[in-house]
Amino acid sequence: MKLKNDLVLRAAKGEDIERYPVWLMRQAGRILPEYRAVRAKIGGFKELVETPERAAEVTVQPVDILGVDAAIIFSDILVVPEAMGLTYQMVESKGPWFEQTIRSEAELKFAETDFDIEDRLGYVLEAIKITNKELDGRVPLIGFAGAPWTILCYMVEGRGSKTFSESRKLLYTNPSLAHELLDRITKVTIQYLKAQIKAGAHMIQVFDSWAGILGTEQYAEFGLKYLDRIATAINEVPVTLFAKGAIASVNALAKLDCNTIGLDWNMDAVKIRQEIGESRTLQGNLDPCALYGTHKDVENLTTKMLDSFTSKRHIVNLGHGVYPDIDPDKVKTFVNTVKNYERKN
Amino acid sequence: MKLKNDLVLRAAKGEDIERYPVWLMRQAGRILPEYRAVRAKIGGFKELVETPERAAEVTVQPVDILGVDAAIIFSDILVVPEAMGLTYQMVESKGPWFEQTIRSEAELKFAETDFDIEDRLGYVLEAIKITNKELDGRVPLIGFAGAPWTILCYMVEGRGSKTFSESRKLLYTNPSLAHELLDRITKVTIQYLKAQIKAGAHMIQVFDSWAGILGTEQYAEFGLKYLDRIATAINEVPVTLFAKGAIASVNALAKLDCNTIGLDWNMDAVKIRQEIGESRTLQGNLDPCALYGTHKDVENLTTKMLDSFTSKRHIVNLGHGVYPDIDPDKVKTFVNTVKNYERKN
Repeated sequence: MKLKNDLVLRAAKGEDIERYPVWLMRQAGRILPEYRAVRAKIGGFKELVETPERAAEVTVQPVDILGVDAAIIFSDILVVPEAMGLTYQMVESKGPWFEQTIRSEAELKFAETDFDIEDRLGYVLEAIKITNKELDGRVPLIGFAGAPWTILCYMVEGRGSKTFSESRKLLYTNPSLAHELLDRITKVTIQYLKAQIKAGAHMIQVFDSWAGILGTEQYAEFGLKYLDRIATAINEVPVTLFAKGAIASVNALAKLDCNTIGLDWNMDAVKIRQEIGESRTLQGNLDPCALYGTHKDVENLTTKMLDSFTSKRHIVNLGHGVYPDIDPDKVKTFVNTVKNYERKN
Repeated sequence: MKLKNDLVLRAAKGEDIERYPVWLMRQAGRILPEYRAVRAKIGGFKELVETPERAAEVTVQPVDILGVDAAIIFSDILVVPEAMGLTYQMVESKGPWFEQTIRSEAELKFAETDFDIEDRLGYVLEAIKITNKELDGRVPLIGFAGAPWTILCYMVEGRGSKTFSESRKLLYTNPSLAHELLDRITKVTIQYLKAQIKAGAHMIQVFDSWAGILGTEQYAEFGLKYLDRIATAINEVPVTLFAKGAIASVNALAKLDCNTIGLDWNMDAVKIRQEIGESRTLQGNLDPCALYGTHKDVENLTTKMLDSFTSKRHIVNLGHGVYPDIDPDKVKTFVNTVKNYERKN
């Protein structure tokens, strides 16, 4: 099916665009009353992720309501460790919790690689197919997965953490176990992303949410190495790599075989553009807290960011997922400011 | 009283040193069984902070047991917001919790400045005096406070947070309230640090634990501006500024009127040295997780760090507080590796 709006894909490839495209991380989610209504009916976050019709419904909502230029499939990065053998619960206001963790060779049996993606993650693929039917070519659909390092963090730690010291401990006490686990996650992730593309994803984003807790040397060895394998393996559609907090590794990240680098709100897009040139598209990176300001504030701060761009190679987004208590009307102001902006370059 | 070991002070001032000095953030604390025994007897963390004799006792422990080159007074950065009018509880395994927060002009009444430091924080000053008596000049005693931005985070948020979005929200919705609060915290902090020096602190460290959640522009306006005032006001003893996570602001930090810049484990000491030259001493920055390795690992990783130094202007430390489950013997290996290292420059 031909897409009516393919701005995001053209921006990712460095092609000509009539205006900057815009979407938001976590655009399908708690900010929308329409999402909360669907979720309340079905029970919880995980049930929603696992029910393709409803996941598709909330995926399409921000396209209808906020007018964004891309949809991103409603899912969770933790579906991958679960498919590999570690089930998780989503504990209200506490986040994910895994009963079993992987901290020894014996526990590697909970990191399976030899299974059929369709069999264990078919619900995500089904949600992608339904979403595309409902989108009817209006905008592209983004598929995604967690980066191997971030997924390892959850598999080792078993839950969120400020320091992820158990995961980082493993890099010192048993680096070969860490590499074996990262290798397995990478294999499954590549298969999973390829299945998402086959199901209809027009673009792929890989989230390395915990990139920022490693120094550059360790991130090169335990992070970038595996992102490299994923970026190299995915050729069918444009790939975005988002390594949150990894300011010191952005230049190395931009050398991987990807189209777009996601920037968090602490990264300086102007400086990074100077350093990496026109080789990659940059995605981001308005501070999500900027949307707490007045409509005028949101307009001014968004325009200021757009004015700072010196290239057409930008996909506008926030520098992190939109916070759940943001007024959806402020998001609309953000989106509309981008859409109405006249590009100067 | 003349100090028998003033290595830390000489290193801070850029004077000659016969070897690099070493101490650890959170050296007085849960890693030591001797600390846990004292704490168990007295009840809890906060009771320990507020009992000068016992606070002094645990402050001296790491000097005796680990052989570090400096003591740091056992206390908490949250004693300042408490003195200003916001009492807090330390909730086991959850961290600090404030019943009252400051998010409006009306709530500014909980941020008092017009009080006597001796009156409300005398217990810290008393602990400093007792510690110095017990140390008997063996090593210098470091006093400390939280940076205004980090203290604001707790006063606005009321507890720890991954994003501190309430605090960052304030910067957009009511920047003048944020500045008023930062101004008040700064005033009290300067008085408090001067009182610590008068009581006997030989050196001061200011901890900006949440520096890393702001972009460079916002950190300059709401963070560095107030650190500048503190650094300028404290002339009596050497000052160390530690802005955790603020990789992009290290150069700006090094321009403030301080002696030493603390580095977290993600910061590249070699690169920062090249950028700032010999103007400041660098403190840090071994990854605290390195101490999970074997004794041989700890020795090798510590030596590798020492080998990378190209200047005498270093105070060795970890890049973050030592983690509570680290084996004290590994800390001794870290300390002894530094003490036995032959400096090449």
